[in-house]
Order: sequence, then C-alpha cells, then structure tokens
Amino acid sequence: MLAPDYDVVVVGAGFAGLAATWQLRKAGKKVRLIEARDRVGGRVWTEHLSPQLYIEKGGQWMGATQDRLRAYAQNFGVETFKTHTTGANLLHIEGKRKLYKGLIPSLSWPALLNLDYAIKRLNRMARTVNLTSPWLTHKAQEWDAMTLQYWLDKNLKFRAAHQLLTIGLEAIFAAHPSDISLLHALFYIKSGRDLETLMNVENGAQEERFVGGAQSIAEKIATECSTSLSLDTAALAIKQHENIVVVSTPIEEISARKAIIAIPPPLVSKLIFEPTLPAHQHQLFQRMFMGAVVKSYVLYERPFWRNQGLSGQAVTTDSPLQIWFDNSPAEGTVGVMTGFALARQAQNFMQKDTEERQAIATQTLVNLLGEKARNIDRYIDKSWHNEWWSGGCYAAIMPPGAWTGVGQYLRKPFIHLHWAGTETSDVWNGYIDGAIRSGERAAAEVLALL
Amino acid sequence: MLAPDYDVVVVGAGFAGLAATWQLRKAGKKVRLIEARDRVGGRVWTEHLSPQLYIEKGGQWMGATQDRLRAYAQNFGVETFKTHTTGANLLHIEGKRKLYKGLIPSLSWPALLNLDYAIKRLNRMARTVNLTSPWLTHKAQEWDAMTLQYWLDKNLKFRAAHQLLTIGLEAIFAAHPSDISLLHALFYIKSGRDLETLMNVENGAQEERFVGGAQSIAEKIATECSTSLSLDTAALAIKQHENIVVVSTPIEEISARKAIIAIPPPLVSKLIFEPTLPAHQHQLFQRMFMGAVVKSYVLYERPFWRNQGLSGQAVTTDSPLQIWFDNSPAEGTVGVMTGFALARQAQNFMQKDTEERQAIATQTLVNLLGEKARNIDRYIDKSWHNEWWSGGCYAAIMPPGAWTGVGQYLRKPFIHLHWAGTETSDVWNGYIDGAIRSGERAAAEVLALL
Repeated sequence: MLAPDYDVVVVGAGFAGLAATWQLRKAGKKVRLIEARDRVGGRVWTEHLSPQLYIEKGGQWMGATQDRLRAYAQNFGVETFKTHTTGANLLHIEGKRKLYKGLIPSLSWPALLNLDYAIKRLNRMARTVNLTSPWLTHKAQEWDAMTLQYWLDKNLKFRAAHQLLTIGLEAIFAAHPSDISLLHALFYIKSGRDLETLMNVENGAQEERFVGGAQSIAEKIATECSTSLSLDTAALAIKQHENIVVVSTPIEEISARKAIIAIPPPLVSKLIFEPTLPAHQHQLFQRMFMGAVVKSYVLYERPFWRNQGLSGQAVTTDSPLQIWFDNSPAEGTVGVMTGFALARQAQNFMQKDTEERQAIATQTLVNLLGEKARNIDRYIDKSWHNEWWSGGCYAAIMPPGAWTGVGQYLRKPFIHLHWAGTETSDVWNGYIDGAIRSGERAAAEVLALL
Repeated sequence: MLAPDYDVVVVGAGFAGLAATWQLRKAGKKVRLIEARDRVGGRVWTEHLSPQLYIEKGGQWMGATQDRLRAYAQNFGVETFKTHTTGANLLHIEGKRKLYKGLIPSLSWPALLNLDYAIKRLNRMARTVNLTSPWLTHKAQEWDAMTLQYWLDKNLKFRAAHQLLTIGLEAIFAAHPSDISLLHALFYIKSGRDLETLMNVENGAQEERFVGGAQSIAEKIATECSTSLSLDTAALAIKQHENIVVVSTPIEEISARKAIIAIPPPLVSKLIFEPTLPAHQHQLFQRMFMGAVVKSYVLYERPFWRNQGLSGQAVTTDSPLQIWFDNSPAEGTVGVMTGFALARQAQNFMQKDTEERQAIATQTLVNLLGEKARNIDRYIDKSWHNEWWSGGCYAAIMPPGAWTGVGQYLRKPFIHLHWAGTETSDVWNGYIDGAIRSGERAAAEVLALL
C-alpha cells in the first residue's frame, strides 16, 4: 500500500466539516475537504437577491451561549445585528387575533398556568439528562419509551396551551411530537440550555443575525482553506485498510490516514463502506431521521408593520405557516417577513404549487398584519426536505428507543473514521454552534491519533 | 431517447422481486431482475452443511393463511413438514424451570390473567386497524403517538406477564418495544391475523417447514426466470425520463419502461435517484428501520430432548438467546436446536466473539435441557443486522409518528417506479408470504400500465 495523499480527508463542507478542516490545517495537517454540492455551508445557505438584499434559505441565527459560532464570526470578521423585536407580537388562534409582549401570549388564566407548568416541568426534567451519554440518564428507559406527543397530551389539558406549545416545539424540532422520543426532546432542550432559550428571540437562540448572511462565515472559512476544498465532489464509497482510508468520488480516489464524516447521519447510509459499518452504527443511522421545514419569504417595499407597533413576530394556528419573524435587512430598507411551515405542515405545504403557496403566505400575512400585507413585492420559499444532500432540516432526530438502544454508537470511531455533524454535539445539538463544536471535537480526536 | 431494452426492470431478487418477475414473465413481458448478492432469496437463505443436513439462516416457516407462499411451494414442488412440537415446552424464568403445554406457560394466576387480558386487548385493538391505510384507523393518532413499550408498561403490572409478553413481542418484531409505534404493532398483529397466530407453532406462523429449505422455493423461481436474472449486480442509480427508466449498475445500464424496487425500504436511501425521490418518500424511508436478530444453531448427534418428553420449544429470561425451537431435520436424524437473540440482545450478543457466543448458547441449553446438552457437535450462528444488503431482519418497522405522518407514501408509484417488498404488504407484512403478495401486487400495477 502506498503512502496516503493526505493526513485527513473530510467529507462534507457544512460548518462541521469546515471547522474540522480549519482546525486541522491550523495544526499543520494536510487536509482534503470534499463537498457534494457546488457550495459550502450545508444547511446554511444565503441567497443574494441584489447587492443590498439577501435572504437566508437555511440556518440564520445566533443566540446567547453559542460561543463557538460567536468566536468564528468574530475571527472571520462577520458582524451581527439584533433580530427585530420592537413592537407587539401577534397571536392568531382559531380566528381570534391578539397582541402580546415577550414569549408567552395572553391566554385564559388556566391555559396560561397550564402552559407555564408544562414548560417548567420539561425544563426540570431536561436538567437531569446526561448530555454526553443520554442513555445513562436516570429515567432514560422510561422517557425513551415515550413520545413527546404522549407527554404533551398527558400534561396539557387546555387546548390553547397544547396548541401553542406544540407550535413552539415543532418550531424547535421541525418534526411532529409523535416522531420524537421524549428523552431526545429533553436532551435537545438541555443541549440548548432550556426551553425558553430555544424559543426566545431576545436572550434566546434567535437573538442575532449576520451581516451578509450566515453562509458568509462558511465562505470565509472555505476561502482560508481553499487549497483543501473540492466542490461538486460527492463521496461514493469509503474503503479502509490497515493504515489508510480511501474515499472514492466520481472524479478521483482520495487516500488519507484518517477521515472525518461530517454529513447528516441519515445520509451516511448512502455511502458504500468496506469493511461495512458496524451493525450497531448502521442500525443507529437507520433510526435517525431529518426534520422537515419550509422557509417562506414574503418581500414588501417597506416593513410597514413596524409603524403599526408590531414586531412582525407572530404565531398562528390558522395557516400551515405557523411562525413568523420580521426578517428585514438590518437597516429596514425593505420589508421581509419569513414564515415557517414545519413537520407535517411542511410536507403538505410543498404538495401545493408555487402560486398556491404564495397565496397562502400572503393571506396569512393579511390576517396577521392587515390589508397592507396583500401588496407583496415578491414571494420565495425554500423547502429543505426536498434537498437531497441534507435529507431535511434542521437536524436528525432520535425516535423512541434509539438513544437507549444504539445511541452510544453515535460518535464511536470506526477504524480510521471519525464522526462530526451537529447531531454528534452535546451542546447546541442541531444548531450551527453544535456543528462547529462537533467539527472541532472530531479534529481533536484525529489530532490525538496522528 | 432509444427504445428501452426491457418492459420492466426489477431490483432485488428476494421473494418480492422473484414473485414480481415470475408474474410479469407469465404475462409475456420482457423482464430483467438484478440482485446485489451472489444468491437469490434475500432474507431467506438456506445453508447446506451436508447433502442430508441444511440450516435456515433466515426466514424458514410457513403458517396457516399464508396462502400465497403455500401456492408457490406447491407450484414449484417444494414439500413441507410440521415443525416438531411433541412433548412439553420449557419456561426458564429468573432461575426457575417449568414445563408447560401450548402457548401460555404456567405462571401465578394473577400473572396469567394479566397476560391473557393484555393479549386479548391487543387483539381487540388490532381488529380496528385499517390494514390498507393504517393512518385512517379510528385511533390512529393516539396509537401512533405511543410506543408499544409504553402500552406494555401501563397494562402489564405483573412482572412475569410483562417479561413473557415482551419476549413474545420481541420474537415477533425483532425490535425493542420502545422502538415500535403501538399503531404499527397493532397493524402487524392484524396483518398476520392475531397475536396467537403470530406466536404459535401449531395453527400459527411457525407451523410448517420446507423440505430442502425455504430458499429452495426462491431458487426454483430463479431457475424458471433464469434468462431474466443477473446476480452480483447492485443497482447504484435510477434515472427516470419521460418514457423510460434507466438503472445503473457497476456493470451496465439497464433501460425499461417500468421498474419495481423490491428491496428493504431503509436500503432505498442507498440509491441515487434522478429526479430525486419525492420528499415524503425520502422522509418515510428515513423513518423505517430494520429489526435485529441472530439465529444461533447448536447441533447434536441426536435430538435427545425428545426422549425426555420435551418439545425443544423453550423461553428463557436468563440468556440473550430467549426463544428456542427444535429445528432438527424432518426425520430427526440429527439434533438441531435454534435460539433467537433479538433486538438489543442481538446487538449485544454480536459484540462477543464466536467462542463466547457458543459458550452462552451451550450453557443456555444445559440450563434448559440438562447436562446432555453440553456435548455439542457444532455451533453456527447468523446475524442479520450485519448483512449490508438487508440492513437487518426480519423487516422494516415503523417508529411512532411514521404511519400517520408519511405512511401513505409507502406504496405510491413515483413516475415509472413501483414499490414491492414485504413491508409494502397489508397481509402478512414482514413475512415471506407478504413479500410474495407485494411482488404480485407491484406486477399487477405495472401490467395495468404497460
């Protein structure tokens, strides 16, 4: 066997693969980074509509305690600005329109107490989760035998409270609560600190946006690592020998001493492994599944709702686009509203044609913001469950039984293969910050062995 | 675009693909059948140890109401014989050894009543399932938000009853009850008539065996269809055009008017589709996962337990090999005991080396059958979750949320692609009989369009 061409080959140039590559290069290693798409960033993708205006098709926010993402933004000189929150939030629930401030809309007192109780209880349970080894959590077996849906049905007896927390949780997971292990939900909540942090804009995961878009950080890492990077180069097969790993692509074979696989877990099954993946890992990757989300953009000449004292943040039970944010540029020169269709709603929404989707989005905004919303400039949407190289968004989720059954194999190296990707992070799992952490962790694992 | 080479290309030569091919050929169609392995039969695989002795590494039984499998066996002249049941069954529960007759072991009266109640209740619920469209079942949402484990914990308060039904259900699903949607469990129970039918030998799914092994039926279909069949030919990519579908393999490109995909659903993700699979289907195939099972064979000079009045059928809570059958040849010339390690037990069992596995199997049989069992002739085992081209056994399972979320896309044709495989059958789903039915259904779909 000849000497390998590289120290490390990294598969996937999302934030995890980019972070791993950058760290390995800084440590003086010879690295090759391959990416199936014609762009870097993975589930983070900024589209520039004009020199002044861009939209975020994928991940876009940074929140408190997302320290690694913050460090990367600072290092690469990408500035941030606050998500617009001035004004009242809107709740549209079964035909009724209400204004509110902060996280919790105004419901009846019993519903409000019920909602508050459920959030507190989920947080309390989440605090007991063992983040690095969720299967060792005291109540792991019990919670992993339960869906999040079952827990909600049992604990939220007030319809409005149930509806609202369901929307909030679907916005967090991009999956239906029936799909999600309660243990995984609690793990995820703790991984991002607590439920309020995950749901909030201010002091929460949606607090800040990036000047020039979140993808610009990925692009700047890629520029710094440009001699390592090949786009349009999908990995097809991975062969491991005693001292070498060979990644086959349609273009060439790349050999290295170690490999970091930094793609969503459900996509791992698309690769051909020789020797084949350990059975446990193969079964784990079969179990994990990607969420489904559509981001729907409605563009206006101006963010007219701001003059009406509205923040643009809205929740509605009366549309497949259930959560809305004011996503206008920092200067507010143009009005941009972004709505999310989530989980089953996302799947159903994408069954309709573009015209129909635009009509639904517009009507939803008319209901929320008034007749002025009918006069739109442009409609654009982005469905992630249609993206072959992601398989869905935001992240891969554990159904019941997966964490306790095969979860311990999630990060386990296999000969020369190491695993990265936000799903392998114990902190900010599912977020850009978690992706970076996972890439750095995988790079550290590999460095210790080289 | 040139005219296609074939009317239909079938991917996968398990029973589903073979049945489809045979039916299409009988209808006068030009068919090509490709198979990744060097053999036909898929999850059915008979190994001949000598001209007189064979073992069944995979599916092996035929039961009452499995009419399509029976018809194929008769058509291809494969004879059957009864699974050995003469004598008392054994139960080894937490160190205590008991003898019993029939399906239900002798427990304390309250435990027995509890077990009986649970089985009756599962059957009663199963009867309400809409087999062709499980998501339309009256209580679909409620049951699909629950794991089978949760239901067992709630309804089986007697430890022995809980333990025994869990073993029985793991033997049926080859998955942990935490992994399985209650709705799917009920669907599966009804699909095979009722719980007793699934668990029983006499009048149940394990009633008869095949002379020469179950794979011999597959081989005889393959012989009849030999001009259609290519072994060692894995499908890599499937491209669809207006009037033609092209399946790429490492050897050649095969074009046809229609294609039938007859592989386990989780393996579909390994193929590259152009255009890409509809998002719903991609997400469904991400959700379904294969069970895990090890079949452990211990060979003796004679089936000595028969002289002790034992049937060889045994259940034990004290070994990873929890269910045992007398799997000796029809004439009883050699003694063969077959034990099953299931779900998490299967995964853990395969972490041990062969010597250790043999020691565990032998000791389990000594505990069950007495000291004579120590004197073994040979040990062989077969792990299915290590099989790359199956991904696990017996079948792909729906976790919570999958049937109600995306289940309706399971059999939905995609341009020229039609779906077969036992997982797509509403009758005897997960069994050989279901595989045949699915192949015949897919063939009929295609014939209606050609």
